[in-house]
Amino acid sequence: MKMPVNVSQTDFIAALDSFALIVGKEWVFTKDEDLFPYRDAYSPLRATFEDRSPSAAVAPASVDEVQSIVRVANKYEIPLYTISTGKNLGYGGAAPNQSGSVVLDLKRMNKIIEVNESNAYAIVEPGVSYFDLYNYIQERGLKLWLDVADPGWGSVMGNALDHGVGHTASRFRNHFDSHCGLEVVLPNGEAVRTGMGAMPGSKTWAQFKMGMGPVLDGIFSQSNFGVVTKMGIWLMPQPEAFMQGVVTAPLYDDLHEIVELLKYAENSGLAPGAPELGSPLLGISNYVKHLVDAFYEGPPQLRKEHVDLIAKASVGYSADLQRYGLNNKIPYWNLHLKFYGPKKVIQAQWEAIQDLALNKIKGVGFKSGPIQTDPKKAADEWTFYPQDAGVPNMDFFGMGTRAGGNPHPMRGHMWFSPVIPQSAEGILEANSVFEKAHRNMSALQDIPIWNLRPFALPAPFFERTFLFILGFPITDDVAMNKASIKAYRTLLDIAAEHGWGEYRCHPEFQDQAVGLYSHNNNSLLRLSETIKDAVDPKGILSPGRYGIWPKHLRGDKK
Amino acid sequence: MKMPVNVSQTDFIAALDSFALIVGKEWVFTKDEDLFPYRDAYSPLRATFEDRSPSAAVAPASVDEVQSIVRVANKYEIPLYTISTGKNLGYGGAAPNQSGSVVLDLKRMNKIIEVNESNAYAIVEPGVSYFDLYNYIQERGLKLWLDVADPGWGSVMGNALDHGVGHTASRFRNHFDSHCGLEVVLPNGEAVRTGMGAMPGSKTWAQFKMGMGPVLDGIFSQSNFGVVTKMGIWLMPQPEAFMQGVVTAPLYDDLHEIVELLKYAENSGLAPGAPELGSPLLGISNYVKHLVDAFYEGPPQLRKEHVDLIAKASVGYSADLQRYGLNNKIPYWNLHLKFYGPKKVIQAQWEAIQDLALNKIKGVGFKSGPIQTDPKKAADEWTFYPQDAGVPNMDFFGMGTRAGGNPHPMRGHMWFSPVIPQSAEGILEANSVFEKAHRNMSALQDIPIWNLRPFALPAPFFERTFLFILGFPITDDVAMNKASIKAYRTLLDIAAEHGWGEYRCHPEFQDQAVGLYSHNNNSLLRLSETIKDAVDPKGILSPGRYGIWPKHLRGDKK
Repeated sequence: MKMPVNVSQTDFIAALDSFALIVGKEWVFTKDEDLFPYRDAYSPLRATFEDRSPSAAVAPASVDEVQSIVRVANKYEIPLYTISTGKNLGYGGAAPNQSGSVVLDLKRMNKIIEVNESNAYAIVEPGVSYFDLYNYIQERGLKLWLDVADPGWGSVMGNALDHGVGHTASRFRNHFDSHCGLEVVLPNGEAVRTGMGAMPGSKTWAQFKMGMGPVLDGIFSQSNFGVVTKMGIWLMPQPEAFMQGVVTAPLYDDLHEIVELLKYAENSGLAPGAPELGSPLLGISNYVKHLVDAFYEGPPQLRKEHVDLIAKASVGYSADLQRYGLNNKIPYWNLHLKFYGPKKVIQAQWEAIQDLALNKIKGVGFKSGPIQTDPKKAADEWTFYPQDAGVPNMDFFGMGTRAGGNPHPMRGHMWFSPVIPQSAEGILEANSVFEKAHRNMSALQDIPIWNLRPFALPAPFFERTFLFILGFPITDDVAMNKASIKAYRTLLDIAAEHGWGEYRCHPEFQDQAVGLYSHNNNSLLRLSETIKDAVDPKGILSPGRYGIWPKHLRGDKK
Repeated sequence: MKMPVNVSQTDFIAALDSFALIVGKEWVFTKDEDLFPYRDAYSPLRATFEDRSPSAAVAPASVDEVQSIVRVANKYEIPLYTISTGKNLGYGGAAPNQSGSVVLDLKRMNKIIEVNESNAYAIVEPGVSYFDLYNYIQERGLKLWLDVADPGWGSVMGNALDHGVGHTASRFRNHFDSHCGLEVVLPNGEAVRTGMGAMPGSKTWAQFKMGMGPVLDGIFSQSNFGVVTKMGIWLMPQPEAFMQGVVTAPLYDDLHEIVELLKYAENSGLAPGAPELGSPLLGISNYVKHLVDAFYEGPPQLRKEHVDLIAKASVGYSADLQRYGLNNKIPYWNLHLKFYGPKKVIQAQWEAIQDLALNKIKGVGFKSGPIQTDPKKAADEWTFYPQDAGVPNMDFFGMGTRAGGNPHPMRGHMWFSPVIPQSAEGILEANSVFEKAHRNMSALQDIPIWNLRPFALPAPFFERTFLFILGFPITDDVAMNKASIKAYRTLLDIAAEHGWGEYRCHPEFQDQAVGLYSHNNNSLLRLSETIKDAVDPKGILSPGRYGIWPKHLRGDKK
């Protein structure tokens, strides 16, 4: 029997018995086969002794049961690792940061408490997935869009609390930012409601974010200070129509103006969807290649001559490559914009974007897709990227896991995703730095760094933010996975030297990644630890989550 | 010499000497005449013994000095009350919650650290006012708009931290929500930076809000857990043009559709400015009366017949009044919308709004102002409300303070502003409840409740939120002010019975107002107290701010 750290067998058995009294025996799991789903499906430590795994799992069905479980855990000092649906596979899945923790699995708490069409919000429990909420809305014919993550089986709440991000209008893509109101069970078993939820009888819990006094919601995201059991989330009124448009630019130096246009389009609200950069000339499509390829006059497959020119480019540039692009009418850059609203507004916004671009970029080109009105149809026919139209699916997830050109069979992936400055200079500097790092690491060892292409473009999902996302493959080869871990750690340090930090990462790297946010001798982390010690003195909730360990484990961090 | 509570004279003098060594003698104030500005200019307790006042004030010029002052305060257990510019006069001004506290006045820290035009943000110190930042932007010709509060002399940071709100596009009106990155001196003297500011060398402090790990920013708003010394704030790219439009509806029952239109216009992004409700028929203009009056065909002054009909209406309605409105073409309701962007986009948005309204409201009417492009000109000529065009001024402040029809000479005002449900039903219920309360209170005592008109409409400044704002006058008459305090306290309780809580209030009422957020035996406040005790064990920072008292003062709350 696997045991929680620092817990006697007697206490552990007593705790499990108590859990069974609370939730019923059938919802306490201790057998290996029952615990298999609570391992990290994409673990970079797979098939090694260090692979993270729980000692047990318990699945409550109500807030009351969560409160009772937490009180038992406090009594016996059992570490609980909370998951909603546990599906964030690229970031550690359902497995606890600290092996031996008991997984507190909230997937049975899957009630949709309220969907308010007129005020455009939902209040959900942790086990509600994007599919669940989407289907609920569709079945009732409510005129609301949900901003969904990749993939659609994820928890609406869990994704928000883990700082996940989506695809539709700026106001809704940052899932934590678009939440409104939490209910949280504290480590002492008490339930707290934030914002207007703290006012008995209030009907505005998911309307006004702040309530009165300090806004405590943020302390419950990417942390381990409480178990969130309800969350309000703002939804988008269903737009009359939606459309995509692509702006193309011919020259390498146009990157500057293309990025300026991206920022203006986003910050002014002119193009509300996530504005994506691509480079047809460098062979980098926007992430939904087959939709966007239709928008430029390049060949569907790159010719050998073209591929060779790309390989010789440095930080994405060579004069020969640029000439090749001009001769073959392949744009150096494109900017993929998405519009939502009444048709006439979409048309006016797209015209305004073109007016701006014509003034700034010589040789600029424009292509737009049809103005569509049916999200489901657009998603089914892939005339619009499904998530961009608020339709959850598993396709992008499928793409991300089993494709990508890695020669080794993959067992999943993990993401390296630092925040870099939102500017052309930021993109070029990141490419220069990571290109050099890649060369140096490749010279030292044979590491396949998936997606670390000669040139990469940042993801624009968070408003005003560039994430420079690189993917690492997980394989069946233990040595290769170890090499990937080493490469990841090296890149973390290199990024931090330039002021670039992760927005989220796999538990294997959380101590290091959080530790690099080191201003003033890690004063921010130490403040988190101060709060941790105050609200969870026995350190029972998710020890180690995002680098926050309880006092008694802070020395060796394991 | 006025003394801080529970501090010996020896210690106090030693602390003042230490403060003088840190900031220079000329920046430590103890004389009555020097401390006068640190009293509550609009105090409801003016000319009484209970009127809040400090024992001293100290004005540092740098973060280092703030750190040193806090360390001294910790040593001698001196309560410090932090202000930025101390200009939120309707909410307590510069006077401490707890009399005898030393005011930590940050107005000398007035550096504009950075304004980034391309990324549309600013990073400021506490002493930077809206005027300061606006002038900085104008002098450099930067194409940026600042969302400003009323009045323009307020601190950009202080207003955000106190959950202040503005007038332009939704994304920017909630000033705390549009902040990005804080630097905070903790009660132990340590400096913490949140978000990307914790990553040394980062250039994205004011770009990405969250950094990694828990988002702690919120705990420093409406609270007393730290002294904020720097803040990033998102700015709006200067729009090509701006325009106002008014939708009018003839019947009482149209309120429902007018409110639905308001919500759709806001939540879809179709009309980005704060959407304001008015009722020409009830004599309630949008808050800038002289701009909006031009938009309906009613008489500039209400005729006596009309005034009499209004007086007889109940919850805003009488059949006679409605008939009068129809006969005289005076709309029952109007909705004032504001648009920002390229001219063709504004036109398309306004047309789309009209399309929607025509489908929903019989007899709907529309008026729009000119499409303008020069904010300064529009503000100077009052062809657009200055704050709606991002231009700070003092005019609204002037209106609010010395006008309003109160028969008694006023010494200021204080605001009662509960959050009510964002719906027509919410408006009608609030009016019904407060109308009854007003009748009952008037029967019991002669209280002038300024602005508690027979019918009132909510303020729409916060996205998705209705604030039902009522103003109370401060007069020279002590008994009358006491009656106002009593009335305010009664209204707080009545509001809470219906689930309506304040978003912000004068220190005199903070204990009561926060206490009414009482879900689960005030578990939210008790969580704040747990954090308070952990980060500020001696309770030196702003004791009592928003109902949060240090442990040793929690019994008697004073």
